[in-house]
Amino acid sequence: MTLVYLDNNATTMVAPEVCEAMMPYFSEMYGNASSIYDLAHSANNAVKESREIIADFLGAKDPKEIIFTSCGSESANMAIKGTLEVNKNKKHIITTKIEHPCVLNLYKDLEKKGYRVSWIDVDSNGDLNIGQLLEEVCDDTALVSVMMANNETGVIYPVDKISEAVKMRNPETKVFVDAVQAAGKIPINVKDTKIDMLGISGHKFHAPKGIGALYVKTGTMISPLIIGGHQEKGKRAGTENVPYIVAMATAARLAKEALNDELTRVKALRDKLERGILSSIKNSVLNSKSKNRVPNTTNIGFQYIEGELILLHMNDLGICASSGSACTSGSLEPSHVLRAQGVPFTSLHGSIRFSLSRYTTEQEIDYTLEKLPAIIDKLVKISPFQKELNEIFK
Amino acid sequence: MTLVYLDNNATTMVAPEVCEAMMPYFSEMYGNASSIYDLAHSANNAVKESREIIADFLGAKDPKEIIFTSCGSESANMAIKGTLEVNKNKKHIITTKIEHPCVLNLYKDLEKKGYRVSWIDVDSNGDLNIGQLLEEVCDDTALVSVMMANNETGVIYPVDKISEAVKMRNPETKVFVDAVQAAGKIPINVKDTKIDMLGISGHKFHAPKGIGALYVKTGTMISPLIIGGHQEKGKRAGTENVPYIVAMATAARLAKEALNDELTRVKALRDKLERGILSSIKNSVLNSKSKNRVPNTTNIGFQYIEGELILLHMNDLGICASSGSACTSGSLEPSHVLRAQGVPFTSLHGSIRFSLSRYTTEQEIDYTLEKLPAIIDKLVKISPFQKELNEIFK
Repeated sequence: MTLVYLDNNATTMVAPEVCEAMMPYFSEMYGNASSIYDLAHSANNAVKESREIIADFLGAKDPKEIIFTSCGSESANMAIKGTLEVNKNKKHIITTKIEHPCVLNLYKDLEKKGYRVSWIDVDSNGDLNIGQLLEEVCDDTALVSVMMANNETGVIYPVDKISEAVKMRNPETKVFVDAVQAAGKIPINVKDTKIDMLGISGHKFHAPKGIGALYVKTGTMISPLIIGGHQEKGKRAGTENVPYIVAMATAARLAKEALNDELTRVKALRDKLERGILSSIKNSVLNSKSKNRVPNTTNIGFQYIEGELILLHMNDLGICASSGSACTSGSLEPSHVLRAQGVPFTSLHGSIRFSLSRYTTEQEIDYTLEKLPAIIDKLVKISPFQKELNEIFK
Repeated sequence: MTLVYLDNNATTMVAPEVCEAMMPYFSEMYGNASSIYDLAHSANNAVKESREIIADFLGAKDPKEIIFTSCGSESANMAIKGTLEVNKNKKHIITTKIEHPCVLNLYKDLEKKGYRVSWIDVDSNGDLNIGQLLEEVCDDTALVSVMMANNETGVIYPVDKISEAVKMRNPETKVFVDAVQAAGKIPINVKDTKIDMLGISGHKFHAPKGIGALYVKTGTMISPLIIGGHQEKGKRAGTENVPYIVAMATAARLAKEALNDELTRVKALRDKLERGILSSIKNSVLNSKSKNRVPNTTNIGFQYIEGELILLHMNDLGICASSGSACTSGSLEPSHVLRAQGVPFTSLHGSIRFSLSRYTTEQEIDYTLEKLPAIIDKLVKISPFQKELNEIFK
């Protein structure tokens, strides 16, 4: 059975080294990291060492700035709600129209609860209107929240510069960065920035689903989301998930080592796939032409045909990709990210995200380039938009 | 190296069958359960099947009543905050003095935020003053929160009867039960009760740390704690932790099968340990004499000596136990549970919890009974309370 997995922005395979590293913590080293006997010390030490590795991965000054969470959504909820809770007098939030649903839906909820939210635009390349963002910063701005890289298009946002500029306008405004789709794909170095909080999720870089982290800069006050025991210095209750913490640290170490491969070989494969599709399939268009994109992602619209149908035909040939965020699949709404970019309806419904990983091979890209034209051709023939398609193909 | 693990209320070894069941979801079946291709279907089906198994484990009517969370603390925070959020006009909560820190500390926090909390007493056996609890129920009572079994003493609380009686007094009051220490030790059957919400944690019954569930009865409204994607029907965002969900379901199935063993063989071993200690060590006293206790737990006070020292000496001989909740270790405060029972200071500081599991053997209990008297004897000799000890030992 062929399996060509080009949906690594949805989730990734757990790296074999990651599996191996976490296994002993299920069996012989199963102690509760908070207990006092020897069995617990190995668990406790593993958590300590993992915290140092994650701090290094994010370029944090101090391992104490890392809080382990259960996922990227928890990291975001904790950062956002935790910041607003300790800054109750400020009622204004600035974010973008292209955030991940876990951030976007939380701000929509906060809007209902009386917060004023400024939603910043992106242009047709996917780049952010930073001037508009900075103009919105005012005395009442509690939080600015910008993702580091978009999950659907891969466009990178200059969160370091944005955080500098925001703090110039209002030093009290906190900056949260959702770096879930950046971690492992591009370097992150929080200590050289004014970013207050930054969230990541292990399963986007070959750790298991169910583990994340939140960086909180020393001196930044946030109230906990999960109150209870003393774990994570009282910032996140719950018995430490030692195997997954070890897994995420191992995955972070591997991702850091592989970063050069990601930025060269993986990027070359992505570019080959992108160029190959655009040159061989006449009704295809590149959705985000920004120069700043993570090396593994491309988002391509196939005009006048239906994305779900493309995916199902690809699935029959063992190729996995997606039409948007996995967190919104099942809904028939077209992508909010592509709509924000002004992608026309003619390609909006037929847009596919391909996301590679360091496990992607050239053979897999060649296979995809070989099979995709026939799929699109078949769907073009049954499209109700024959007149428009004839124009393109003539 | 001898390892006698008698701290199963802190955490448990992951059962080998549980490890085996979850492993494929790290490697070949790593798809995101929300994606649309075949790779994702196996993940999605595994989550569906696991939900049915957990529903059966808790005696829920409908698998839709089960929400997967990352731990017992998250389940409790979600139930409690989620209930109060949708019942904002009611400002009264009833709970007990002997709840787990994850529940206790949350109510202390809510007290600071303007909620009135009634803290119900227990007697010297550990049994709850149910009359006092029911008298407190009033129009303003949003929530009654009683644990099913205490983590330190093992005392079982009649949450089914309590929920019935509470609803008689105020049908609008919601009932939350922290069943973290009951699941896998005694039968749970929510559908025959008036309990609205019930939380469990996988790592207390041989699943890994980092997975839990919250039962929410059909028709009970709660707002989510982690907002974002559509996962768990919008009640808990975050990519599903498929391996751990499968792990917890497997552990639940095994625990259900082993329940009879727990209630007979494990209970007999616990009783042997308890009787053995009480008969061979003169300054030992049983802390909770309630007839209703989970079969695996005993809590014994050693008068006039220091619990931490007992634990360290036990550790030297490979025996793991604890002096209270792992979630409070490191703090020098004596157990809030034993204080609520009125355990005198003479044994309060020297109280040890022994908690067995289905993996505990008779040899391990014999080894503990053989080694413990010499440890206590040594510590008795260096105790500053020689006069009082002479009275006991004369």
